[in-house]
Amino acid sequence: MHDYRSHTCAELNKSNVGETVRLSGWVHRVRDHGGLLFIDLRDHYGVTQVMADPDSPVFAEIEKVRSEWCIRIDGNVKARDESLVNDKIPTGEIEVFIRDIEVLGKSEELPLMVFGEQEYPEETRLRYRYLDLRREKMQKNMLLRSNMVASIRKRMWDKGFNEFQTPIITASSPEGARDFLVPSRLHPGKFYALPQAPQQFKQLMMVSGFDKYFQIAPCFRDEDPRADRSPTDFYQLDLEMSFVTQQDVFDTIQPVMQGVFEEFGKGRKVDSEWPQISYKDAAKWYGTDKPDLRNPIKMQDCSEHFRGSGFAIFANLLENEGTEIRAIPAPKGGSRKFCDRMNKFAQGEGLPGMGYIFWRDQGEGMEAAGPLAKNIGPERTEAIRQQLGLGVGDAAFFLGGKPKTFESVAGRARTVIGEELGLTDKDRFAFCWIVDFPIYEKDEETGKIDFEHNPFSMPQGGMDALLSDPLAVKGYQYDLACNGYELVSGAIRNHKPEIMFKAFEIAGYGKEEVEKRFGGMVNAFQYGAPPHGGCAAGIDRMVMLLADEANIREVIMFPMNQRAEDLMMSAPSEPMSDQLMELGLRVIPQD
Amino acid sequence: MHDYRSHTCAELNKSNVGETVRLSGWVHRVRDHGGLLFIDLRDHYGVTQVMADPDSPVFAEIEKVRSEWCIRIDGNVKARDESLVNDKIPTGEIEVFIRDIEVLGKSEELPLMVFGEQEYPEETRLRYRYLDLRREKMQKNMLLRSNMVASIRKRMWDKGFNEFQTPIITASSPEGARDFLVPSRLHPGKFYALPQAPQQFKQLMMVSGFDKYFQIAPCFRDEDPRADRSPTDFYQLDLEMSFVTQQDVFDTIQPVMQGVFEEFGKGRKVDSEWPQISYKDAAKWYGTDKPDLRNPIKMQDCSEHFRGSGFAIFANLLENEGTEIRAIPAPKGGSRKFCDRMNKFAQGEGLPGMGYIFWRDQGEGMEAAGPLAKNIGPERTEAIRQQLGLGVGDAAFFLGGKPKTFESVAGRARTVIGEELGLTDKDRFAFCWIVDFPIYEKDEETGKIDFEHNPFSMPQGGMDALLSDPLAVKGYQYDLACNGYELVSGAIRNHKPEIMFKAFEIAGYGKEEVEKRFGGMVNAFQYGAPPHGGCAAGIDRMVMLLADEANIREVIMFPMNQRAEDLMMSAPSEPMSDQLMELGLRVIPQD
Repeated sequence: MHDYRSHTCAELNKSNVGETVRLSGWVHRVRDHGGLLFIDLRDHYGVTQVMADPDSPVFAEIEKVRSEWCIRIDGNVKARDESLVNDKIPTGEIEVFIRDIEVLGKSEELPLMVFGEQEYPEETRLRYRYLDLRREKMQKNMLLRSNMVASIRKRMWDKGFNEFQTPIITASSPEGARDFLVPSRLHPGKFYALPQAPQQFKQLMMVSGFDKYFQIAPCFRDEDPRADRSPTDFYQLDLEMSFVTQQDVFDTIQPVMQGVFEEFGKGRKVDSEWPQISYKDAAKWYGTDKPDLRNPIKMQDCSEHFRGSGFAIFANLLENEGTEIRAIPAPKGGSRKFCDRMNKFAQGEGLPGMGYIFWRDQGEGMEAAGPLAKNIGPERTEAIRQQLGLGVGDAAFFLGGKPKTFESVAGRARTVIGEELGLTDKDRFAFCWIVDFPIYEKDEETGKIDFEHNPFSMPQGGMDALLSDPLAVKGYQYDLACNGYELVSGAIRNHKPEIMFKAFEIAGYGKEEVEKRFGGMVNAFQYGAPPHGGCAAGIDRMVMLLADEANIREVIMFPMNQRAEDLMMSAPSEPMSDQLMELGLRVIPQD
Repeated sequence: MHDYRSHTCAELNKSNVGETVRLSGWVHRVRDHGGLLFIDLRDHYGVTQVMADPDSPVFAEIEKVRSEWCIRIDGNVKARDESLVNDKIPTGEIEVFIRDIEVLGKSEELPLMVFGEQEYPEETRLRYRYLDLRREKMQKNMLLRSNMVASIRKRMWDKGFNEFQTPIITASSPEGARDFLVPSRLHPGKFYALPQAPQQFKQLMMVSGFDKYFQIAPCFRDEDPRADRSPTDFYQLDLEMSFVTQQDVFDTIQPVMQGVFEEFGKGRKVDSEWPQISYKDAAKWYGTDKPDLRNPIKMQDCSEHFRGSGFAIFANLLENEGTEIRAIPAPKGGSRKFCDRMNKFAQGEGLPGMGYIFWRDQGEGMEAAGPLAKNIGPERTEAIRQQLGLGVGDAAFFLGGKPKTFESVAGRARTVIGEELGLTDKDRFAFCWIVDFPIYEKDEETGKIDFEHNPFSMPQGGMDALLSDPLAVKGYQYDLACNGYELVSGAIRNHKPEIMFKAFEIAGYGKEEVEKRFGGMVNAFQYGAPPHGGCAAGIDRMVMLLADEANIREVIMFPMNQRAEDLMMSAPSEPMSDQLMELGLRVIPQD
């Protein structure tokens, strides 16, 4: 017989009754039923009930074992009494009578229980991560992640993509965040950087003629920690293709993402219609460039109904250029209590409040209630109702001003309204592409034009567009939003050196600076660059959505804590002085 | 029609004749046949001949294109004349008459030709890697690597392994090489390290109950560059299993490796018998712990034939304790010329020379020739011949002294003999496990006992063995050698804290130091650690063997040069002073 096991702890059933077996695993739970000892023996695969009575030759040893000891037992498989069958686990028909036991690994007193649902502080969980990971939820999350990544790889291979590894110790490739630096020993005083993304390398591969690249790529950004962001390394599905249009990229990635969500979504509905919404419309309709389309609410411009109306605040606002009154329709939100609560929400977000109208029927037909309705009068109120398609029991909220000043609050209000009114379908994954991002934005104060997003995207209309009004230029650039999160981001790249230099020039970057910062890629474009584009999807974010977790540390095997420390492994730590010497570095004493 | 292509450059054949098609790719070669222009248009998938005559509406534009311009053409597929069919390429039956052309990316004058076999200095190739990678050999090597890694993943999944990602920005995990350090911004003066291998994390995963782990893992060692070593990051197939013996690990990894070599070995023979050879025997028989078993030569101890013989040098040597005379049999090496050459080889390696005997027949029956045979006389010479199983036309070489002083030279001599005599079968992959590594070695000078290899291996015989003679203790530790290279290295781990502390104590490391250096893992072992073991296989090395390349830079997409620099991307480079400030670091001026 094998040294450690003839079967896993998920394998035995009625057909094994009578066999002598060997199992290894952890003591999940011990129960003492008046002299009879029952142990739930757990391994990666499942749980088997093993038991002993005082007749067992090793009863005295079994009495000593405690929770989370790792043991090996030999025993006989016995059918459970009909009334004791547990049909929740595959091994529920049998139990194993222990004949021999070996303690493979004892355990000290546990700082964290594996059995049960008890909650522990995150610091405890991370310090004893190896115990935390034994818990059922964590085992499931880690397997989900592993299986999801495997599924992505298979889907990408099936589509003719090759996975290539790009350098990890390399040059700085600015993506908007801070680089992690790695001091060079062979070149003291010089530093490598860890890549924020393999952006330049994947574009270089396209220039090298590799038609379809992907990578489950580690990325590194020295950012301040957040619940949904790893403070050190994270992974993305990175892909790039040559000779493609934006629609080709969409047609490639949609089946992969949709397939993965269907495979691992545990029955939740996965939308197959992925609308393409312009950046501008997304802001207008949803107040965000990552809208949650599970929420049916779509905001609308109601300015005309307020212009010159009796509601002076809005009427006056609209006298200023670039202002607008926007409505958030709230079907089923038609009560004063709800409207007041939402008004308070807006105040909590720093606005003076949200005007509202709600429609009710107190036995005398439909009536529009709320101070706003009174101020603008029944005609305008009714026009608004008709535009928004609302009726009795519904409400609408109104925000006004320059859209930039209220759009993000409006977006959050939309979310809260959708959730509170139960309009948002929680059992669903709803996707949309956000397209037509502007290439540039103007700093309101300085008037300076800078890149709104990634500077490597091809401007729609090419050089001609750049030569007209830069602020009107849109890029072949896109995000995929799912349930309110940005899951994917990408672009058709600017592969023409002259257009790239022009694009940078408009943002105030001279040729020399471009060559200094992106020299590797820009030089390569001088030697027959193909049109190309691609995208990157956040792996950690996908697992979070599928596992329904709000904290990224629930889906990473060994995450850092919120202070970017690993207390289990003691990282970061003080270097030895000879290490610093070799690197030609000195630590500046901190105050 | 699609913006860029209706077909790839490998797709068209006779069945497409008459169609109007669109192709995109690079101008591989232009030929001007008296007014007719032929272009080999190349993409990732293949080459298609496209052509134009002065009747083509875009002839003038086609005349302008140069090598490595990226172009898009529209044209009509025409069958080639029977006599012009090229059956070496899938598109050899047809050519495309160009009707329209678009230049997608022009090229400057090329620093490196893609077409043809011209050699360029490595610095040129790396600086213009995107051109170098367009060459057929590089495309093939990169695809081989990508396909091999994909195949490994599929094989591991099929065996029930899950791939899990371990941290990259983490704590130092000493594996014998130098760490790359990453300064922490949030904790100025402290540093993270990049992992030399995921050793501690994979063991922690076993403690966490994940039964079968693997990862195609990036590893980081700050080592001085070599032809077969990347100076920064490299990849290994890292795996670990719980509840296993050494033989279980062998039975798991052999089918994976053998399968991969069969799949990508291009018909070369792949041995299915993988002998297990002890570390001691490997040294004796092959002079190395990574023997090349394609070479049939096995060295033998011939001491007894020389003890007290007339060959004073060897006879005197043998008076000293621990000395030995070892023979390298050289079938078909029986000529003075060859023997002299090998003697010179040994001198070039720093030895006084190698004694030899060769057997010839100058018409008067077998005769043993060479000064050594004369000195020891016919009886001893004949006994040697019989022991070694040699005959007319064969030779044997002899080295003497303490084995440590000559074994490595003997090993290299064996290699040269095998190659020069054509004994080594080049079209074959021959594998062997090297087992029973000693846990400790004694420093000859200081007498201090230290770890010979990895300190985490379980000693054979456990605690009892450690308590007797430590220098006699062997570990459950193993390497896999293939064709003279170490491909895999692994061990059954020491998962019992008390045995681990004892093992370190013998090597002079106190409990405190062990806890400081390996605290994460050692603490975890206190909480019910399962027996576990695994191994790691070098991905870059495997590709090198399969691609028949001696330089690791031929199988890495974007490698560093021998000075650990990336001249294309300008890494490493000088940091900005505010970056250093944020990290609390100062560069010490170099002399």
